[in-house]
Amino acid sequence: MGIITFTTDFGQRDWFVGTMKGVVLGISPKAVLVDLTHEIPPGDIRAGAFTLAAGCRFFPPGTIHVAVVDPGVGSARKAIGVRTADYFFLGPDNGVLAWALKHETVAAVHVLENHSLFCRPFSQTFHGRDLFAPVAARLLRGVALSEFGPPLNDFVRLAWQEPRCSARVVEGAVVYLDRFGNGITNIDAAAMAMFQSRQAAVFAGRKRLGPVADCYAAVSAGQAVAVLGSSGFLEIAVNGGNAALRLGLKVGSKLTVRQTKATA
Amino acid sequence: MGIITFTTDFGQRDWFVGTMKGVVLGISPKAVLVDLTHEIPPGDIRAGAFTLAAGCRFFPPGTIHVAVVDPGVGSARKAIGVRTADYFFLGPDNGVLAWALKHETVAAVHVLENHSLFCRPFSQTFHGRDLFAPVAARLLRGVALSEFGPPLNDFVRLAWQEPRCSARVVEGAVVYLDRFGNGITNIDAAAMAMFQSRQAAVFAGRKRLGPVADCYAAVSAGQAVAVLGSSGFLEIAVNGGNAALRLGLKVGSKLTVRQTKATA
Amino acid sequence: MGIITFTTDFGQRDWFVGTMKGVVLGISPKAVLVDLTHEIPPGDIRAGAFTLAAGCRFFPPGTIHVAVVDPGVGSARKAIGVRTADYFFLGPDNGVLAWALKHETVAAVHVLENHSLFCRPFSQTFHGRDLFAPVAARLLRGVALSEFGPPLNDFVRLAWQEPRCSARVVEGAVVYLDRFGNGITNIDAAAMAMFQSRQAAVFAGRKRLGPVADCYAAVSAGQAVAVLGSSGFLEIAVNGGNAALRLGLKVGSKLTVRQTKATA
Repeated sequence: MGIITFTTDFGQRDWFVGTMKGVVLGISPKAVLVDLTHEIPPGDIRAGAFTLAAGCRFFPPGTIHVAVVDPGVGSARKAIGVRTADYFFLGPDNGVLAWALKHETVAAVHVLENHSLFCRPFSQTFHGRDLFAPVAARLLRGVALSEFGPPLNDFVRLAWQEPRCSARVVEGAVVYLDRFGNGITNIDAAAMAMFQSRQAAVFAGRKRLGPVADCYAAVSAGQAVAVLGSSGFLEIAVNGGNAALRLGLKVGSKLTVRQTKATA
Repeated sequence: MGIITFTTDFGQRDWFVGTMKGVVLGISPKAVLVDLTHEIPPGDIRAGAFTLAAGCRFFPPGTIHVAVVDPGVGSARKAIGVRTADYFFLGPDNGVLAWALKHETVAAVHVLENHSLFCRPFSQTFHGRDLFAPVAARLLRGVALSEFGPPLNDFVRLAWQEPRCSARVVEGAVVYLDRFGNGITNIDAAAMAMFQSRQAAVFAGRKRLGPVADCYAAVSAGQAVAVLGSSGFLEIAVNGGNAALRLGLKVGSKLTVRQTKATA
Repeated sequence: MGIITFTTDFGQRDWFVGTMKGVVLGISPKAVLVDLTHEIPPGDIRAGAFTLAAGCRFFPPGTIHVAVVDPGVGSARKAIGVRTADYFFLGPDNGVLAWALKHETVAAVHVLENHSLFCRPFSQTFHGRDLFAPVAARLLRGVALSEFGPPLNDFVRLAWQEPRCSARVVEGAVVYLDRFGNGITNIDAAAMAMFQSRQAAVFAGRKRLGPVADCYAAVSAGQAVAVLGSSGFLEIAVNGGNAALRLGLKVGSKLTVRQTKATA
């Protein structure tokens, strides 16, 4: 018994996800399979990395996280498996695992290259099904990570822009737009610690977007608000609306948090 | 062992649904998790309520139904748990549970406010993950509903427009448009009982849309037809086409069923 | 214990899929349920047939495959169950099972008509829930296929255009466009066997689209390439892009593979 999660750009309209699961269940019939998402935009490694990092820690220890956003499938890029204090992470070595691993204690990294433990026939265009699925299923059954290939000293990192903090001002940017149109930023709880709630506001350039508050409903319907969201980052929302559409937010849009009232 | 279903507006493109499931499985590893849907339009309580009411009764007794369409998350609205003769229902007290509960024998309603049984840290923007998921998982493990908070006398209702029935005429309206473009109405089997099948037709104002029949294929391809659908309500369809697009149906569109032939 | 897969056009935004699963779990609580996809375009039997054929063989023996793309639901079309050497297949007898069955050893075909083993009340518009779900669940529990209805001599076939092979030229067509915009053709590995990799190219009429290669990354970003894909057919892709949009591919687009260099 154990959990395998999937984070991919395979979509749900074709048979790709289902066949990955078929391969897993053929090897490990009692695996519990959870979709983190399959709707990462095709080839968008940064969106995949952010999704995995935002979601992985809500699973119990022992969970195997498989992340396949893999525009270089079949090329020289490596496939890797990472064992951390709590989890396994499997994916192409292109950065998609990097932001999740920033918060984990990495115990071992191995290249996955032992073809005798993969599917046959082996496709050069679908390693999700033919490589990562059987590796995940065999890890769940107790095969050691070292059986799949030799150790690696390191893995590919992915640049992460930290917010810039100065006296009473934090400068950051939108890093992810969610399905509600909320703009999730790189401004985390630590950066926000210097502000008292409801004594700060978010600006795009000189334009005030809205106050920092505790929940979306703290402002009237249709108004913008910034909350320290469930992923641990400040996010810009419109109560009852779509902030991305209403405020023209994009991934990369620069935002500033400023103190608006003197603290007590 | 037991089933938890989810009806939400979280979508499937982000990590929200996956993390809810991770929280449940961390507490109740043998839970069987079923998505009713996560594609309720953001904040559309009525669509969520209709979906839950249409789907919940096809699950075996003991199932825990979680419905989170929650535009007021983090505000003063209550979170509630309802025990009925057959099921548990969990959700914000904003009406999303109301239409399902119309058909159930309610045994107890409790406010969910015992933070010691929720996730920590606790987010004010994602009660699906931090409140409803752990409550569902703990109910499945046998924790009594009364452990989560005190009883409530009542819950928030949601207006439901009954169809108007007179001699040989039923007046109703479209309440839901499904993925096929079928317009599901508020006209139920009881209201239709006075008509003989194929001796009635549906009208929008004076315009005849099509006959009442037993199945979509009772009319030629491209023609409109009304059938007593699988959700227990009359629905307007176009055989092989999309009735919403072809007939301009919207939620709220008024429709009339009239007898077209003398009964035998 | 056993697996049931679903291939349908029900979509994921309504309660249809969830209620099918509720019915199955009410009868067979330990069933393992896997979605192949629910996003077949409404009524597109050929897309359903291709999806099922591409996905079914990656599941372990004993799996029950349910495919419901059923524009004639409730009409005179039969519902059938097919036992093969490895699997069961359930669906309407309209061709949706046909391409999967081409690759299977058919042991028995039965019409499904024993209403005492279906859901009550029984809807004429949703056999996925009221007929195929309970049949799948009961098959999983060991009820014999013959209990559901009498044997049939045959089932409805679906035309499949084989590629035309001549000296150094293969003529085929796009049969499916996947979520990445890759155009999957009817040209299989057997038809490609006469070409040496990277010594052939794909043409639309006289226009050369790109070379045949081993993986998408064999060409520069934005360039077209043809690879023998994971479904066993030649597919046309654009590295890092969408071939359907870039090259104007549609289901039915004719393509030619030609030798471009003398073989060694």
